Amino acid sequence: MSTAPAAGQGPLALICGGGSLPLAVADYVQARGRAVLLFPLRGIARPQDYAGRPHTWVRIAMFGAFARVARAAGCRDIVMIGSIVRPSFWQVRFDLTTLMMLPRIAAAFNGGDDHILGSGARLIEEQGFRVLGAHEVAPEILVPEGALGRAQPSERDRADIALGLDYLRATGAFDVGQAVVVTGKHVQAVEAAEGTDGMLARVVELRASGRIRTPAGSGVLVKAPKHGQDLRFDMPSIGPLTVEGAGLAGLAGIAVVAGSSIVAEPAQLIAAADRANIFVVGTPAGGA
Amino acid sequence: MSTAPAAGQGPLALICGGGSLPLAVADYVQARGRAVLLFPLRGIARPQDYAGRPHTWVRIAMFGAFARVARAAGCRDIVMIGSIVRPSFWQVRFDLTTLMMLPRIAAAFNGGDDHILGSGARLIEEQGFRVLGAHEVAPEILVPEGALGRAQPSERDRADIALGLDYLRATGAFDVGQAVVVTGKHVQAVEAAEGTDGMLARVVELRASGRIRTPAGSGVLVKAPKHGQDLRFDMPSIGPLTVEGAGLAGLAGIAVVAGSSIVAEPAQLIAAADRANIFVVGTPAGGA
Repeated sequence: MSTAPAAGQGPLALICGGGSLPLAVADYVQARGRAVLLFPLRGIARPQDYAGRPHTWVRIAMFGAFARVARAAGCRDIVMIGSIVRPSFWQVRFDLTTLMMLPRIAAAFNGGDDHILGSGARLIEEQGFRVLGAHEVAPEILVPEGALGRAQPSERDRADIALGLDYLRATGAFDVGQAVVVTGKHVQAVEAAEGTDGMLARVVELRASGRIRTPAGSGVLVKAPKHGQDLRFDMPSIGPLTVEGAGLAGLAGIAVVAGSSIVAEPAQLIAAADRANIFVVGTPAGGA
Repeated sequence: MSTAPAAGQGPLALICGGGSLPLAVADYVQARGRAVLLFPLRGIARPQDYAGRPHTWVRIAMFGAFARVARAAGCRDIVMIGSIVRPSFWQVRFDLTTLMMLPRIAAAFNGGDDHILGSGARLIEEQGFRVLGAHEVAPEILVPEGALGRAQPSERDRADIALGLDYLRATGAFDVGQAVVVTGKHVQAVEAAEGTDGMLARVVELRASGRIRTPAGSGVLVKAPKHGQDLRFDMPSIGPLTVEGAGLAGLAGIAVVAGSSIVAEPAQLIAAADRANIFVVGTPAGGA
């Protein structure tokens, strides 16, 4: 991980997807003395979240408009952060600068998530910008090693975590999901296109139908980065809603890889975890 | 694969789970001149399917009752075939013979599917029986190499099949599901506790919500055995309902490993596949 850039490198351009994480990153960066320009994505970021702060709305694929404003303000560094649902190719409007990149963007849309995000970053860097990961400018968002709240994983939970990490290591090369649910030393659900929330909802059903028989209050959601995943914009992340989903799924806790995972709204996440008596733990990158 | 036992080894005891496959196996074995005793599982096999044939109802875990009848009839070989939902431990009633095996059965219930089935077979063999795979007495149920119906996989489909087989090879050691859905060279769904039908239903939703963007009529359901899977009682299987599920999920076809997969009701499966213009292909065991 590179060190957080100090002040004096010009303002940071923050392209903001959904959720509260972009605003948290802006606060952390500003607290370090660096100016931040907010570029919420139209149709994805919530207008009310940005009402109290200076901001410029931008659209996905309207890169030229963004670049003019960012350059005029002296920004060289760009961070893209927040949840983004991958847009349908033909629903996107393009501006002229972006249209010139069209064949390569179209190619990226046929790849996996890594592919499209990596391609987007390369295109932006060819325009003279530098794309950084949010954790490089705001390392506060990284999950540290150890338990975040009061609850701690049991020995049984640690066995489930180790199995989940083994599974994710074996499949990390496939650009598939980054999460599994393990209960009773058995992989019960594997995330792919449905996303983590969809997988947790499935675990609720699997318990209700008796296909998962381990008692409620056991089992772990395990998330890990894919091999070669570009951690600048697709790091595994957890937040209060993940804790809520894990609680509804009857799990004992959540395990992510310390230093390679983002926590959105840590205070709310810890409060939710303590309320539900669910552990949230950052495991060392080398093992469980 | 061992050769199919010839007549003269005594009648075969066929423990019958759900679906039509047990009756198909019985017909194949009888056509080879060997007598078959049918033991449908109470609450799992459908009474109307057995009304026209001599049979003895048995219960899961009531092994002593079954063993008395089978021994008296001169059966040494047992085949267990048909769909079985893993029973909840405390819902099962035990007879005396089975009660003696209780600690080991309870241990098996905590393992994966392989574990419980393998343990069951070992316990039965200690009682002097021999447990065979249905394909050993009725090789007609194995999927052959090549397309079963009219439709053939395209080059694009073959790439999806190869990726699916690679993924299943990478995860085969984990005693998880045996199936994935691949579309546009991307693993979109991975089967675990929900089973193949549950995963195909999810693909329907993922298409409806736009999370899978490849057009309907593309993508493949790929099934493969796990590493070290005991093929005597847990071989991947497909049938007309699998074809129906793949059609609803908007897939181009189904690929399984030739010689290591069972097809239930081949005539109906081929008819359903031809009607839906879906390919069903047995791939060589070594690759796609």
